[in-house]
Amino acid sequence: MNKIVLKRISILPMTRAEDLLIEGDLLIEGDRIAYVGPPRFWPEEVEVFEGNGKVVLPGFVNAHTHLAMVFLRGFADDMALDRWLKEKIWPMEAKLKPYHVYTFSMLGAAELIASGVTTFADMYFHMDRVAQAVEETGLRASLSQGMIAQGNPFPQEVLKRGTDFAVKFRGAAQGRITTMLAPHAPYTCPPDFLKRVREVALKEGLPVHIHVSETNKEVEDCLMEYGVTPPELLESLGLFDCSVLAAHCVVLRDQDFFILRKVKGVAHCPISNLKLASGVAPVPRLLDCGVNVALGTDGASSNNRLELLQEIKTASLLAKGVNFDPLALPAFQTLQMATLGGAKALSLEQEIGTLEVGKKADLVVFDFDTPHLQPCFDYYSHLVYSALPSDVHSVMVDGKWLYRDRRFETLDWERVKKEALKATKELVQG
Amino acid sequence: MNKIVLKRISILPMTRAEDLLIEGDLLIEGDRIAYVGPPRFWPEEVEVFEGNGKVVLPGFVNAHTHLAMVFLRGFADDMALDRWLKEKIWPMEAKLKPYHVYTFSMLGAAELIASGVTTFADMYFHMDRVAQAVEETGLRASLSQGMIAQGNPFPQEVLKRGTDFAVKFRGAAQGRITTMLAPHAPYTCPPDFLKRVREVALKEGLPVHIHVSETNKEVEDCLMEYGVTPPELLESLGLFDCSVLAAHCVVLRDQDFFILRKVKGVAHCPISNLKLASGVAPVPRLLDCGVNVALGTDGASSNNRLELLQEIKTASLLAKGVNFDPLALPAFQTLQMATLGGAKALSLEQEIGTLEVGKKADLVVFDFDTPHLQPCFDYYSHLVYSALPSDVHSVMVDGKWLYRDRRFETLDWERVKKEALKATKELVQG
Repeated sequence: MNKIVLKRISILPMTRAEDLLIEGDLLIEGDRIAYVGPPRFWPEEVEVFEGNGKVVLPGFVNAHTHLAMVFLRGFADDMALDRWLKEKIWPMEAKLKPYHVYTFSMLGAAELIASGVTTFADMYFHMDRVAQAVEETGLRASLSQGMIAQGNPFPQEVLKRGTDFAVKFRGAAQGRITTMLAPHAPYTCPPDFLKRVREVALKEGLPVHIHVSETNKEVEDCLMEYGVTPPELLESLGLFDCSVLAAHCVVLRDQDFFILRKVKGVAHCPISNLKLASGVAPVPRLLDCGVNVALGTDGASSNNRLELLQEIKTASLLAKGVNFDPLALPAFQTLQMATLGGAKALSLEQEIGTLEVGKKADLVVFDFDTPHLQPCFDYYSHLVYSALPSDVHSVMVDGKWLYRDRRFETLDWERVKKEALKATKELVQG
Repeated sequence: MNKIVLKRISILPMTRAEDLLIEGDLLIEGDRIAYVGPPRFWPEEVEVFEGNGKVVLPGFVNAHTHLAMVFLRGFADDMALDRWLKEKIWPMEAKLKPYHVYTFSMLGAAELIASGVTTFADMYFHMDRVAQAVEETGLRASLSQGMIAQGNPFPQEVLKRGTDFAVKFRGAAQGRITTMLAPHAPYTCPPDFLKRVREVALKEGLPVHIHVSETNKEVEDCLMEYGVTPPELLESLGLFDCSVLAAHCVVLRDQDFFILRKVKGVAHCPISNLKLASGVAPVPRLLDCGVNVALGTDGASSNNRLELLQEIKTASLLAKGVNFDPLALPAFQTLQMATLGGAKALSLEQEIGTLEVGKKADLVVFDFDTPHLQPCFDYYSHLVYSALPSDVHSVMVDGKWLYRDRRFETLDWERVKKEALKATKELVQG
């Protein structure tokens, strides 16, 4: 069995702030963490990774994205949401063939890996090809086929495809793939459809991934049509009997805060929400109400990156600046949203999200030998307010290096780039 | 004379969006730009920098910082401004000796250079030692000795020290150093003092660098004491007869917008303003009123980085998200704030801020060969919404490389780091 020790490395288990260990050892046996503690003598068969000056923490969880959308990054910006979707995004997406989704998922995977994201929650289509990219790159993911029932004459078919994918692929990639059902949103999936989703989710033991209250218009429309807010509507349909990952939750009414305590997690996507001019989610109040908040990037076309460090910093800064409270969302708490908070939101908190014995060895090693991280008084502060994706030195999932000393171990960047550029050209010219 | 051509490189002159040149040549003769246009044949004595796949634009201008404060990065975060200053920042700053300011300025300079900042506006103390770091590293800077008259029994002395520095050091470092007078703020410099600053500034032809309307408390206090807002107060004192760089301008009243048209530039510091919970400056309205807006990081202890890419992205996103307007601050306009806008704010627009024949060769070369910048539909979008400091490949000031192929050419990082750590240890333990 694979045995690796990260030696004399600063360990941030992300359990409690005070569990920080300066110059400790972290042993990995197979795909799990076997020891976290003071330095020890290790037998010869244990491979040594010298930690000198470096910092290790749980890999980041990107709790809401649409990975293959990387091909539309920068394709159209600075536009109103409506025109952006109708004139730019949807016509391009309509041309996507399954192999495009694979090709672009590989490109997105490269970005995730190089920035320390080890797990992501994805909602898109041709999801078997996203699964293929997860399998090949060694990432961990919670995958779901997006379901839009509104306007579809065969909603049963939509639900069947989403369910078939979720049932077939759960446990794939040696267990690194989990799956969810993904009714896109209350405004694209009518109540009857959502009720059926609930039944299937409960029967199959599948979590649910859904967009909730992203924009003011969506909330106003829901109030007009049903007389209740989107969270109230979903609650009335019993959807929160399932394990729900609720993306966005930007525009909330008083009654929504307590309802959202019933979800496994809210995926806060601060940058996408700003870029699409949706506003700023009331994160401090959600946290005060006991809601678990995770962080997501949303698709690259509305962000325009997939890495979590900017999401972490922006979440913390917005909480302070918009609420005029310099004490809001301190560093440790924000970093926890990106790790354990994400793990909970994806119903994976038993396996990942902290560095503890028995958990999966999913981790990111940071190198602090750079002008913007010297001197270092506080690891949490530096990771939240100063660190950049380029400070990521090595990344491991399931005990296997995906990125080591800033080199990809499971993908060939030149090949991935070449194929992504070829596919983009096809789509733009075709 | 030094002759270098950047060959077949994508050139963003930042004059107008449509002046973008794909695969052009840019010739540098001595310290100035001598040609920008389609590829040409160049004689043998011209040194060739192969631009293949790279992008060049004017170096970024960090229009408001306190460089040597890098030593306090992460020393104290998540605190109320008052306690933060009184309990943490000021006691540490009180211990600073001149050589500390030099040592930390070198550390800050490394961060500026590696992230493509070629010019910065600095307000601090022991400024001759900041000038030394500018001289050695090859950066360009507008330096000013911060003046606090309030509570000082000898305000003439304060003004004399500020003036002496400005007069002695202007034109230093082969002209790369310009200087300003820096009355810290209207709440730390009484009207009489500001009047004298105005006189000296006009007599000596010196611009003025000052903090204006950073927090609500400051504006309320000013209204209470003088019955007018800080911009109104400064206008009534005639300060805007000088070339003024006004930092922050977060909390503005209706009447302030038109008054601020008289300044050379507002240094918008969005990240510092969020982190210290001051709020969000009304940038779109300032721009609508014809105010020149530049971007600054403020000191590293309230940011916590000195690079401009995060400032650019955050400025653009906040303008959209807080005003619910996805069209606010589009990519080109925001990028211009960080280049030509900064140059104007520092009264340097005749020399830097765009890539045009006759201007100083201050530029930054980006390498787009990375997952988060492929494919590329739009250089402006990628630079504003996707690029990271680690995408900076090479940096030039005055025709001289400060950073080339991601290596420092004018400073020794190991030495800078070692000395900064030693000095920090002294200060923390002493």
